[in-house]
Amino acid sequence: MNFNLNEAIEILEQTPKTLESYLANLSQGWMTSSEGEGTWNPVEVIDHLIECEKHNFIPRLQFILEAGEGEAFPPFDRFAHLNQSEERTLGERFSEFQTLRTENIAKLKELVDSDEVLEKTGSHPALGTVKVRELVSTWAVHDLTHISQITRVLAERYRKDVGPWVEFLGVLK
Amino acid sequence: MNFNLNEAIEILEQTPKTLESYLANLSQGWMTSSEGEGTWNPVEVIDHLIECEKHNFIPRLQFILEAGEGEAFPPFDRFAHLNQSEERTLGERFSEFQTLRTENIAKLKELVDSDEVLEKTGSHPALGTVKVRELVSTWAVHDLTHISQITRVLAERYRKDVGPWVEFLGVLK
Repeated sequence: MNFNLNEAIEILEQTPKTLESYLANLSQGWMTSSEGEGTWNPVEVIDHLIECEKHNFIPRLQFILEAGEGEAFPPFDRFAHLNQSEERTLGERFSEFQTLRTENIAKLKELVDSDEVLEKTGSHPALGTVKVRELVSTWAVHDLTHISQITRVLAERYRKDVGPWVEFLGVLK
Repeated sequence: MNFNLNEAIEILEQTPKTLESYLANLSQGWMTSSEGEGTWNPVEVIDHLIECEKHNFIPRLQFILEAGEGEAFPPFDRFAHLNQSEERTLGERFSEFQTLRTENIAKLKELVDSDEVLEKTGSHPALGTVKVRELVSTWAVHDLTHISQITRVLAERYRKDVGPWVEFLGVLK
């Protein structure tokens, strides 16, 4: 096991600015690209990350600390962000993600104020018993999963363009 | 085919700053982590990217434009950066990568001054005939491959820590 709260927070802290640096200056062709029908483009991934700041990790942490294993926490709708009708710019999205993430890291530090809290358990509707330390680890790796997804989506766009080099490019495997 | 020179340059431009945002504030545990013996940690990936700025993409572009298919370009040593003895800080590495990348994008724009140049062909020592457009596409996707690799390495460190969530985290698949 490698989990350490401060190190997990290092991952959580960098994500909004890293994604802004990654994507803010890419033109439409990149931002509307996906891996095919039913998959997300980079804008939809950011919307999902914003949705998770609102309804996933910190709400679940609060739920565990209040309910323990007595009640499974409500399932998270992974597709909620696809039904949003409001028009927002990419800049507004990055700004919202950064604001929510900063607030949520502050809440995390407040709620997990001792090592004992990390061992508290809750009940995941599909996975059963989970620990706070697993939830926080998952929050960090969830960021990484979506950085990886965005990277795969961008690379996919040039799959044919790289010609014979395709066999040397791991991201296209 | 999706290649467009300006769009490829958008990818090339963001990489040094994105990696700096991603990694500059991560502690040693993250930066020395790898996927096991013989695989690279994030610092080694940055050293490889620096090495490629010096000896891979722009030198190969220049070689193609000078030699055409008459002569295969010299193979690139993918492991050269592992034999460097100089001690450098992470900050010095990011700074060098940014400087070299900025210079190389300027050279790219100078060398590829028309669509015809994109169709010129050279000879890769292992892959045979390659086009300039494929080389430039590959340069961009090569950045993405290594962003993806770094992301996988970071995530791997928490494989056990995420507990039962491992099955929902694509980057650990």
